[in-house]
Amino acid sequence: MARQLYELAGADPAHRFSPFCWRSRMALAHKGLDAECVPWRFTETDRLAFANHNKVPVLVDGDTVVPDSWAIAEYLDRAYPDRPALFGTAKAAIRFITAWTDQVLHAALVRLIVSDIPPVLDPVAASYFRSTREAVFGKSLEAVTEGREGRLPEFRKLLDPLRKTLRSEPFLGGAAPDYADYAVFGAFQWARTVSPLALLAADDPVRDWRERLLDRFDGLARQTPAMAA
Amino acid sequence: MARQLYELAGADPAHRFSPFCWRSRMALAHKGLDAECVPWRFTETDRLAFANHNKVPVLVDGDTVVPDSWAIAEYLDRAYPDRPALFGTAKAAIRFITAWTDQVLHAALVRLIVSDIPPVLDPVAASYFRSTREAVFGKSLEAVTEGREGRLPEFRKLLDPLRKTLRSEPFLGGAAPDYADYAVFGAFQWARTVSPLALLAADDPVRDWRERLLDRFDGLARQTPAMAA
Repeated sequence: MARQLYELAGADPAHRFSPFCWRSRMALAHKGLDAECVPWRFTETDRLAFANHNKVPVLVDGDTVVPDSWAIAEYLDRAYPDRPALFGTAKAAIRFITAWTDQVLHAALVRLIVSDIPPVLDPVAASYFRSTREAVFGKSLEAVTEGREGRLPEFRKLLDPLRKTLRSEPFLGGAAPDYADYAVFGAFQWARTVSPLALLAADDPVRDWRERLLDRFDGLARQTPAMAA
Repeated sequence: MARQLYELAGADPAHRFSPFCWRSRMALAHKGLDAECVPWRFTETDRLAFANHNKVPVLVDGDTVVPDSWAIAEYLDRAYPDRPALFGTAKAAIRFITAWTDQVLHAALVRLIVSDIPPVLDPVAASYFRSTREAVFGKSLEAVTEGREGRLPEFRKLLDPLRKTLRSEPFLGGAAPDYADYAVFGAFQWARTVSPLALLAADDPVRDWRERLLDRFDGLARQTPAMAA
């Protein structure tokens, strides 16, 4: 049976920006596995009822349905042990890096780019996104990101542990990327696909690392529709 | 030749509190290696001239002199490959966790415990410590830690990535600890050995993990002189 990945899409079905879906898309590429993209929009929860889940990514691999990006990565290493490992023996350490991405990096990033998201969505999704997120922030999305250029130094400082690692290692996986790289990269890909904001200075080693991942898998992540270089 | 670890000590030579020295002490125990402790105090830079270094830990292993806790861990895995690995294949990911410990955890912790340090030092070291650190902070050490109980929730929130990992894994190394655990544990051991402040809530999984590491190696870290339970 065909392999499918349900991925968040914008008004343009080719426009994919979810950091969690990017983790799964890069993880599939890392394992050398094809998967048809099934574009999914906010509010289309009925279309995920088969997975008993209300968010993407959801992977369908033959008879197996796997929701949640972390579970998808675990599944891929378990189901395809003969292909390059996503975790190797570093699974718990990668869990930490993934949790740091979710709790620290995404939390900071959303305050820089959230107002760029509604314009890339179709009207129904845009309205849903704006009302749910504005309820969380207690203000308009534009008020959340106001003055964001001035907050870039603070954001860049959060990347210090990543930067220090990348001064001695090409990837968080060492010589080659693994799921730690894809988890953090997903955050940058999220920003790059929706926002023109230049997050990283030209001489930042984090930028060089991001470029290496954009090149990976014949430019898979670079070739997707994006708002920043 | 004998193996020696130069470790920071308080007025009591048995009182060892440096987070970086604790990393190396736990790393040696992990490898099953004995090393005589050579107590070292702030300002005794002449005694480290042989290592071309001005800080501890410094490891002397036969003819080999290795300063810096990260370099010591790398050396131990290289020199003793037949003993349990500190890094396994997760070295770059552990580098990230170690950098996070240095840049985020220590930076937050020092603001909670720094005023507890001079009382455990001999007068010369206490005077040196106070004047250099007060110059950095631009205020008295007591002013730095003032109201610290009120800042505990903020500190505990910084531990979220660690907490999330420890909800599914017993150690950052997975089933058994590795250098990622010792790097982060060193920070808690630093606090525990100098300060009565209760950093962690009783029901925090981070506390359970710390207890497991205090028990490790026949209670090596638990038996050292400490100011907190």
